[in-house]
Amino acid sequence: MSTTSSIPARYFEDFQPGMVFEFGAYEVGENEIIIFGKAFDPQPYHTSSRPPQGSGSGRLIASGWHTAAITMRMLVDHFLPPASVLPSPGHEALKWPRPVYSSDRLRVRATVLGIRPSESKPDRGIIQLKIETLNQHDEMVQEMMSPTFFRRRSIP
Amino acid sequence: MSTTSSIPARYFEDFQPGMVFEFGAYEVGENEIIIFGKAFDPQPYHTSSRPPQGSGSGRLIASGWHTAAITMRMLVDHFLPPASVLPSPGHEALKWPRPVYSSDRLRVRATVLGIRPSESKPDRGIIQLKIETLNQHDEMVQEMMSPTFFRRRSIP
Repeated sequence: MSTTSSIPARYFEDFQPGMVFEFGAYEVGENEIIIFGKAFDPQPYHTSSRPPQGSGSGRLIASGWHTAAITMRMLVDHFLPPASVLPSPGHEALKWPRPVYSSDRLRVRATVLGIRPSESKPDRGIIQLKIETLNQHDEMVQEMMSPTFFRRRSIP
Repeated sequence: MSTTSSIPARYFEDFQPGMVFEFGAYEVGENEIIIFGKAFDPQPYHTSSRPPQGSGSGRLIASGWHTAAITMRMLVDHFLPPASVLPSPGHEALKWPRPVYSSDRLRVRATVLGIRPSESKPDRGIIQLKIETLNQHDEMVQEMMSPTFFRRRSIP
């Protein structure tokens, strides 16, 4: 769609298992955490810079769904080529092993675990990606397995 | 935490496999879809009420992550008791089988698939939930498997 995208044009044929892509630098603001929390996940530790005693760790943390949304933003900005990527069918094994705090700086590491042609549609194939979201201490704050449909550069 | 919650106080012992809970009525606004899309998933079919030709189905649809966030909101508002539910470790098999359009009215159906005590922490157990998000036509727009930690009412 976009002709101005700075994302490298990658098609199904351009991926190989073992490839690793790392990108993004998203600083998570305190206000942003609270706005997202109030809208979608109004539990006390997502909506106040000073959560009440006994509520989680006592610190403001981002909703896991906010971390997922931020991860998507980095994927769209830096990795998913508008001309070749197709809508997502979903994700497997979405995990949030550590909290995200305000002022954390997040980035994404996408690792190609496998590739296979679509059985029903010859114009596309599935790239099996492990998508990790890391903080500034190189700690993983989110992981998911994401089968991602890419168009073929040429149809066999 | 909250002493004013209208959510029934349910603990680990209160769940049995086969139980089904249905709740929520969230009407998805066009502006809300576009605001979420611009913030977190800026692909053309998430950010314009008239997406360009050739961009998806040609209709505005909600980001899957927006559907997930809306689902969380309904879970927090209607199902997850603040006093007994613990932070989520993640979700399995997150699927978006159908698009969400503006003006769709969503609700949630949570089905108890299994229950098991925590092996390491005697004060809690895991309720394995299938969480479906349905639209006003009773079509499933999202599904996920969600192991959910609940405190025990009494520690054995």
